[in-house]
Amino acid sequence: MNIIVQKYGGTSVGSIERIENVAKRIIRQKKRGDSLVIVVSAMSGETNRLISLAHEIAECPDPLHYDMLFAAGEQVSIALLAIALIKKGIEARAFLGYQVHIVTDRTYKKARIKLIEKSKIIKELEAGSVVIVAGCQGVDEEGNITTLGRGGSDTTAIALAAALNAMDCEIYTDVDGVYTSDPRIVLTARKIDKLTFDEMLEMASLGAKVLQIRSCELAKKYCVPLRVRSSFNNTKGTYIGEEVKKMEERVISAVCIDKDQARFTLLGLPFKPNIMKEIFGPLSERSIVIDMIVQNPPMGNKINLSFTVSKSDYHETKKILKKLKSRYSDSAITDEQKIAKISVVGVGMVSQSGVAHTMFDILGKHNIPIKMISTSEIKISCIVDLAQADAAANALHTGFGLDNKRT
Amino acid sequence: MNIIVQKYGGTSVGSIERIENVAKRIIRQKKRGDSLVIVVSAMSGETNRLISLAHEIAECPDPLHYDMLFAAGEQVSIALLAIALIKKGIEARAFLGYQVHIVTDRTYKKARIKLIEKSKIIKELEAGSVVIVAGCQGVDEEGNITTLGRGGSDTTAIALAAALNAMDCEIYTDVDGVYTSDPRIVLTARKIDKLTFDEMLEMASLGAKVLQIRSCELAKKYCVPLRVRSSFNNTKGTYIGEEVKKMEERVISAVCIDKDQARFTLLGLPFKPNIMKEIFGPLSERSIVIDMIVQNPPMGNKINLSFTVSKSDYHETKKILKKLKSRYSDSAITDEQKIAKISVVGVGMVSQSGVAHTMFDILGKHNIPIKMISTSEIKISCIVDLAQADAAANALHTGFGLDNKRT
Repeated sequence: MNIIVQKYGGTSVGSIERIENVAKRIIRQKKRGDSLVIVVSAMSGETNRLISLAHEIAECPDPLHYDMLFAAGEQVSIALLAIALIKKGIEARAFLGYQVHIVTDRTYKKARIKLIEKSKIIKELEAGSVVIVAGCQGVDEEGNITTLGRGGSDTTAIALAAALNAMDCEIYTDVDGVYTSDPRIVLTARKIDKLTFDEMLEMASLGAKVLQIRSCELAKKYCVPLRVRSSFNNTKGTYIGEEVKKMEERVISAVCIDKDQARFTLLGLPFKPNIMKEIFGPLSERSIVIDMIVQNPPMGNKINLSFTVSKSDYHETKKILKKLKSRYSDSAITDEQKIAKISVVGVGMVSQSGVAHTMFDILGKHNIPIKMISTSEIKISCIVDLAQADAAANALHTGFGLDNKRT
Repeated sequence: MNIIVQKYGGTSVGSIERIENVAKRIIRQKKRGDSLVIVVSAMSGETNRLISLAHEIAECPDPLHYDMLFAAGEQVSIALLAIALIKKGIEARAFLGYQVHIVTDRTYKKARIKLIEKSKIIKELEAGSVVIVAGCQGVDEEGNITTLGRGGSDTTAIALAAALNAMDCEIYTDVDGVYTSDPRIVLTARKIDKLTFDEMLEMASLGAKVLQIRSCELAKKYCVPLRVRSSFNNTKGTYIGEEVKKMEERVISAVCIDKDQARFTLLGLPFKPNIMKEIFGPLSERSIVIDMIVQNPPMGNKINLSFTVSKSDYHETKKILKKLKSRYSDSAITDEQKIAKISVVGVGMVSQSGVAHTMFDILGKHNIPIKMISTSEIKISCIVDLAQADAAANALHTGFGLDNKRT
């Protein structure tokens, strides 16, 4: 059995007309003889509608019931897609997370998949049905609905592809593939044909919104090659795999822009062994993901520590830090929300020196001050003023020779 | 443990403001020390929105997935109510049908409850939580979501009240109680203080929309006394029980108007023993409920048969009858959709003669021809032209002395 997992995002199923187009696309593929497992997100706008209802009631809605609310969005879209396929004479069967035992931990709003019981899906595929699975949702061991976080439908698709040993995992979205930068900001951005898991992983963590970071991790871990494609046309998209032969070797593959950043700086912390654990432990307990961390060498017996978090975690982080501050006399907190992270990514960087220097040089020539720096083997990230983010991205895209020459 | 089951209809939870009002009402009651089980419908408008999405795709959407779609409405409202209660500091726990094992048969769209596993609810109540249960939904033995049909949230509430041996079952709605007739049509209609199960059952089956007929049956079967009340004020509402002492003994309690009727007449059927089974068997298999049935005495070897169904079953009934017709040579089918059923109901009728005569007399005086007649111990129903329905109801309401004297 050739199993293909396809995931359709919210804009791809954003209206009845689009759901019917997705149905047609599925039927064409089905007629080639493949066994299809389709993962669907909520219709675009629906998730935001549900979340804003919850937030009208409470700033921090109870997470167990928040996930129950949130999961209703995918319930609607998978039922509609199944109705559309059956209406067109194709056997189809939609399943909610709990119905195919997508078992997760209990971290509501950001749950992690622990196991998928595939027998029910296999049975339906063997009977010739198209199986549709609700994206982004699972169930904990007590039977409570959990959700996997924004973009979690990709995670569902990749986890299913791994569990079912699928031949292919196609991520359908509203863009043609992965781009060298955000085309709305960098007008000369080009589609990338092939990427490694590592590059995609860095790009996802650096603000490229095409794939959620967790789904890239999962694809890399289980070696599930992905194709990111548009559901609105038939262009080839971007292939992401373990090792990819590139058409042309560039040092830098992409420039990433992440405007969802907030910076905290703790001044005058005591220089002692457990200090990092004391600070980051309580944040980690609340599932707050720390992004960049910068620590200067100690001055006297004191250190200064800066880090960034997602803007959505800003208020909670601030609350936790305020509590912690009382433990350290003479310490102070500053924070800043109007910042952005601009990064350059590429496996070519490993064997090339001078990328950092070139990056700082380009930003310097454009009078863009760098507020924080963080590097890995295949990327360099700089925090700059939010107001200068777009200019920085364009300067780097041009400076590293990524511009689409036709534009 | 004093368990009280309360059901809030769609208009009672039709907006965030209204959900918060319901939460306040629940908290007041909770503070009196009662254990509360709250059944909630989908926010008003939501069910229609979901159904119209399905109907944009298919005239007859696949029923299994239709129920999955439909059930998302209640999922949203129970999650929001739980979030509202928890925000106000009250422990609350919302459950979907499958989570508290409301097991039904597999008649999608009109499923019947077979059993409720109450242990999970009892455990939460004992822990002091307000338990919220999604109305109108259950799960079949294979784990598929089922729904109980329009108005099925009342059924959920009554079934829970029976299973939990609740002290009280309160049905909160957007009207003050059960009226002597539809106040939008009969301006002189009055609220009824007390009704017997039998009267309510007849009234529900005759088009009074306050309670679904199946829920009245269930309340009668398990002897669950009901209070129908408004969620917008604190008036007493209508009490419905096994035996009720009435303040004033009237022959007729109410005039019911049912505009959801379509009539079929089969002419020239053979007069033979199995003929009724042959006709009604295929309709029953598709869960089409037959309302009035009128058969004239045979003429020669032929009979004429008339019956009414709900307008929503019109197309399917017509399709089935067309197939059946080919079996009987010389038979013919006629049908009519622009009709209404006007009924008078009252336990007093049992001991009073002349009610039928009075009814026909009143309609005759108003030049309203009667197209079909059907009677039971405590009601008389007449089919009239749809255009004359309101006039007929008003004439009967006045003629039987039901008018509110203050109006």
